[in-house]
Amino acid sequence: MSQQKDTNRRVVLASRPHGAPVEANFRTEHQHIPQPAEGEVLLRTIWLSLDPYMRGRMSDAPSYVPPIGINEVMGAGTVAIVEQSNHSDYAPGDWVVSQNGWQDYALSRGNGLFKLTGPVLKHPSWALGMLGMTGFTACMGLLDIGQPQAGETVVVAAATGAVGSIVGQIAKLKGCHVVGIAGGAEKCRYAEEVLGFDACLDHQNDDLAEKLKRYCPDGIDVYFENVGGKVFNAVLPLMNSKGRIPLCGLVADYNATEAAPGPDRLPQFQDTILRKRLRVQGFIVTQDYGHRFEEFFRQMSQWVAEDRFVFREDVIDGLDNAPETFIGMLEGRNFGKVLVRVAADKPGGK
Amino acid sequence: MSQQKDTNRRVVLASRPHGAPVEANFRTEHQHIPQPAEGEVLLRTIWLSLDPYMRGRMSDAPSYVPPIGINEVMGAGTVAIVEQSNHSDYAPGDWVVSQNGWQDYALSRGNGLFKLTGPVLKHPSWALGMLGMTGFTACMGLLDIGQPQAGETVVVAAATGAVGSIVGQIAKLKGCHVVGIAGGAEKCRYAEEVLGFDACLDHQNDDLAEKLKRYCPDGIDVYFENVGGKVFNAVLPLMNSKGRIPLCGLVADYNATEAAPGPDRLPQFQDTILRKRLRVQGFIVTQDYGHRFEEFFRQMSQWVAEDRFVFREDVIDGLDNAPETFIGMLEGRNFGKVLVRVAADKPGGK
Repeated sequence: MSQQKDTNRRVVLASRPHGAPVEANFRTEHQHIPQPAEGEVLLRTIWLSLDPYMRGRMSDAPSYVPPIGINEVMGAGTVAIVEQSNHSDYAPGDWVVSQNGWQDYALSRGNGLFKLTGPVLKHPSWALGMLGMTGFTACMGLLDIGQPQAGETVVVAAATGAVGSIVGQIAKLKGCHVVGIAGGAEKCRYAEEVLGFDACLDHQNDDLAEKLKRYCPDGIDVYFENVGGKVFNAVLPLMNSKGRIPLCGLVADYNATEAAPGPDRLPQFQDTILRKRLRVQGFIVTQDYGHRFEEFFRQMSQWVAEDRFVFREDVIDGLDNAPETFIGMLEGRNFGKVLVRVAADKPGGK
Repeated sequence: MSQQKDTNRRVVLASRPHGAPVEANFRTEHQHIPQPAEGEVLLRTIWLSLDPYMRGRMSDAPSYVPPIGINEVMGAGTVAIVEQSNHSDYAPGDWVVSQNGWQDYALSRGNGLFKLTGPVLKHPSWALGMLGMTGFTACMGLLDIGQPQAGETVVVAAATGAVGSIVGQIAKLKGCHVVGIAGGAEKCRYAEEVLGFDACLDHQNDDLAEKLKRYCPDGIDVYFENVGGKVFNAVLPLMNSKGRIPLCGLVADYNATEAAPGPDRLPQFQDTILRKRLRVQGFIVTQDYGHRFEEFFRQMSQWVAEDRFVFREDVIDGLDNAPETFIGMLEGRNFGKVLVRVAADKPGGK
């Protein structure tokens, strides 16, 4: 079903997943479209961003984001059009970044809305990618925590993913030797040939550790950790003294249901941190760097205007396909930034 | 045997330990006293510092310090008297901090010597403790990486050990709530009653995790990690968002001979770093902060002059007892900073 003018489809959390989410954890409901009160706007969703952190919100275990309640709408960043406005700052037809979640329509009092103007309107979905949380995460994690210096070696996990692909390209801009890690030959080729990484290695091959050593002959100065799991085993022995590990995500572990079997790698990790004087730091971009969004947006808008970046979007049409797409993304089946095109409108084309 | 005027005793590494060191890993040799060439001084050891990091140097596995060769003298920081001098900066009778290692006499060309003058001469062994590498390690790790703020909670492992006791006292000076962890009721009582910690918990008790929770009602902002092992399991769940973990030592793991059994705690650790946006950073004071020693020495000398610190020395007489004392220290049998009094001289008393 496509977006309707008189009905709000919404995808709610039907039950909490045990391990990997399945379609039964989601339920699509249909409602009347809500009416905006004084001071509110009615927003219509055009683009919906799917991101791995949402898996954490589906569980009620402690996480860095509060859990979504059962029967509540799945949360998500969106690009939307103002349909009706009782708010002096917004007019019908305005494009905004909002937090509509997995649904066609949502009300807002303007909190957290970000109006799209200028060049980004040529490509509004970029406001959820390069110019949005994805790019912001890549930028702050790499530059503020990773602090890459020209000539240093930067390794990026999930190299063709939304965040990883930008991390690697910024690192190249900074003059680093960049080695990506991705799943499958096609992604690796893309990272090398299109994104311009110096190399990209397939973590599905058994010889990852050997290859990584060969392609990082001077060791690793910055490892942008976006994945967790076994890739870490290959990276850790190659870290240089005073290396930095910005810890951005652990998608490989999000579906884990029980403690991992031994051996216990923690003592070895601690020993390496000590011996090599590493800095390992977790961050959540909205919480740690929210005050620097404008600074990021200016810088990244300039890079985008200069055509410095390739940014691949993996677009799926239709809100009904969001659950299946999300499940696949957690298994690494996406190729680029995952977006659901909820409606096909273009700026000015309404 | 005590120190002689015509013979140099030296304790060499006879063999590499497998697991905990044993006395057979050491061998005492007797030599003629070496003669200083032009530009050299002959130093006589008075105080010898024993520190856990030396365990790493006894192995040839990669470590943050190069391994000691078989049949080489065990390395160590020492306080020594200049016996003969062919160096214009030093005169017989001068007291210096040096790196003589586990022996009575050593030659030096002046590199790395630190002449003791002023108040520290009243208590020269302090130059290996509060006013030396021990205090420097505590100060830099806590203040530069830990960055404790007044009102925050600081937890210190090995609370009555050389470094830990100073960490906790500095944290108290900074207005923090300080909870120590130590082995045995006597050490815990000492930390509370003499060092002035708010509480000190015995890691030998089964209820460490519960007690730690009770005594850190506002969570933990800084954990000064000096130990590794199971204490970490109790600390990690209590870390607050944006918490800091300066990683200074892992004495509980130094004698490990094989990978620890499961479960694998690494994913949980990474998840906590991410979720709580922790900063975990290893450091080696001589390598990371060598340029700040003067600054430290001035500050700490002032605190010492103001009698702000209690510093307990665990003094053993006689170089022959160094191996046994060192082995015991790795098992936590010491109580305070471990020093071997190689000879009994006092400044001016020669």
